[in-house]
Amino acid sequence: MSGERILLAHGEGGKRSRELVEKTIAARFVNPLLAPLFDSALLGAQPGEIAFTTDGYVVTPHFFPGGDIGRLAVCGTVNDLAVCGASPIGLSCAFILEEGLPLETLERVLDSMQAAAVEAGVPIVTGDTKVVERGKGDGIFVTTSGVGVIRNGWRPRPETVVPGDKVILTGTMGDHHLAVLIARNNLAIAADIRSDAAPLNGLLLPAVDRFGGAVRIMRDATRGGVGVTLNELAHGAGRRIVLDESRLPVSETVSAVCEILGFDPLFLANEGKALLVVDGAVASDVVALLARHTLGRGAVVVGEVAEGSPGVLLKTRVGGLRAVDYPAGDALPRIC
Amino acid sequence: MSGERILLAHGEGGKRSRELVEKTIAARFVNPLLAPLFDSALLGAQPGEIAFTTDGYVVTPHFFPGGDIGRLAVCGTVNDLAVCGASPIGLSCAFILEEGLPLETLERVLDSMQAAAVEAGVPIVTGDTKVVERGKGDGIFVTTSGVGVIRNGWRPRPETVVPGDKVILTGTMGDHHLAVLIARNNLAIAADIRSDAAPLNGLLLPAVDRFGGAVRIMRDATRGGVGVTLNELAHGAGRRIVLDESRLPVSETVSAVCEILGFDPLFLANEGKALLVVDGAVASDVVALLARHTLGRGAVVVGEVAEGSPGVLLKTRVGGLRAVDYPAGDALPRIC
Repeated sequence: MSGERILLAHGEGGKRSRELVEKTIAARFVNPLLAPLFDSALLGAQPGEIAFTTDGYVVTPHFFPGGDIGRLAVCGTVNDLAVCGASPIGLSCAFILEEGLPLETLERVLDSMQAAAVEAGVPIVTGDTKVVERGKGDGIFVTTSGVGVIRNGWRPRPETVVPGDKVILTGTMGDHHLAVLIARNNLAIAADIRSDAAPLNGLLLPAVDRFGGAVRIMRDATRGGVGVTLNELAHGAGRRIVLDESRLPVSETVSAVCEILGFDPLFLANEGKALLVVDGAVASDVVALLARHTLGRGAVVVGEVAEGSPGVLLKTRVGGLRAVDYPAGDALPRIC
Repeated sequence: MSGERILLAHGEGGKRSRELVEKTIAARFVNPLLAPLFDSALLGAQPGEIAFTTDGYVVTPHFFPGGDIGRLAVCGTVNDLAVCGASPIGLSCAFILEEGLPLETLERVLDSMQAAAVEAGVPIVTGDTKVVERGKGDGIFVTTSGVGVIRNGWRPRPETVVPGDKVILTGTMGDHHLAVLIARNNLAIAADIRSDAAPLNGLLLPAVDRFGGAVRIMRDATRGGVGVTLNELAHGAGRRIVLDESRLPVSETVSAVCEILGFDPLFLANEGKALLVVDGAVASDVVALLARHTLGRGAVVVGEVAEGSPGVLLKTRVGGLRAVDYPAGDALPRIC
């Protein structure tokens, strides 16, 4: 199919639409739930609470070290389910393609989505494709949604967070954000940084299975990074979180780039890292469990829940205490 | 908020993103499932088979007689569930907004989505918002997904379609497609035609409840119209469908516009009409039941399943028989 491009006719519901869906898309995602191509995918009866999530992906460039828009979309949706304690049972993908997109680009994205879905152990069960006129899109937008089933009755319980609870981060901060910025040639800098995009269900769900309600709440630290995610956690729980700067994991390369450019890794987006607030009594056991998984090798306690008004504070290396607030505006180059 | 516009900062995950989500979006969709703003919506345990669907909406203009992009998105997703026999239990909405979009436009779309969701009796339980640079989008794209629960074990069973079954259409063809084309000033014509966009769960699910497996399969006749939808049905079932041209319902206005412009209403998109293939023995009872609902007043048997190779044939008014195939290319001005 080399040289072929997406045409408006691919979105019109006729022969070309059907061929694109059947030969290019469904042929890659092949699984028994997708196969009938009904208007809805039928996922069977399920034994637990249903979780449901959606996310749009608009990243450019579409491909970058460690990932691409398709891998991001699958991992992001799986992770939104996983942090709610849900095993993913089916994903949907809706494409908005710009007229003129090389078919090969779509094919690479589809292959990557399928690979990530296999990695996460979840089928892509339904989808949709629209084509917009040249200049009305940006090559390819992907919106993925996911349905999951919660295991063992766990759910996020911000109301159970109490002083003495520990905050765990599953690995280094900022890799994804910088990988995309560098791939975009936005920074006058080169560095070997790869996105951490990965499905976290295999890492997080065993922690919930084993520790139950002692895991109070989990979040993936995506857009806005650890800083914004922890603020949302703290305000959602009505609690104060105190981070220990010296424990925050950042790779040497990311740290060096941040220093040169004046970025704060706390606000850089991650796509394969989660924050867990857990009962202090089991914190080291949770860390040990997480660290046994490839994606949790860098898991570490980065802070704790303390008495005081809701919000996030950072104990700095030099011993000070400063507020970590939501960033006001364009503090960092955006990636999505 | 008059005069305000969408900024890139609304998509960056910081304060402005949070304000947009909380004050503009979530405030309109308020319901207990959305309220916690977790990464996933938690929908509880469900008593039947889960159905799951997604669709992207890229229509311009965003507003047209009888509907808008938001109403379309909600109705389209509800209908994809309903034709699979599923009661919708939760919808998601993911917005891709173009920098510079008037906030008021977004607000009108949100209000319309909420109104359509109330009409369908389903909450909007989760969502996402991304902002793309000016010139990389088209004002607003909406991708909705939906989760539903199938009642009484019904599911689409194309393999049960047999000769003698009847094909029912729930009302007139082409209203939506022409309403959008006219609103876009694509046609050198003015006519009072309103989109039929409507949620069909209240119309279709009672038919499934009452007639069970005698309703073989249902489809909403959207992109590609009755012509393409019936082709998909016929080929999916491996059966021949013979339509009776004289019974195909078209309003006088739509018919007149089609005659002037040389459009075939069979291939015009609808957003509030469904096709049902039912056991011939109950066809008139199904029509009677549908016709008691406001959205099914025009329900009528338009054809039947016959012996012969799979495909769709049309018995014309003058007594001929012609193949109704997938349209090859740009037979009609596209609307999505």
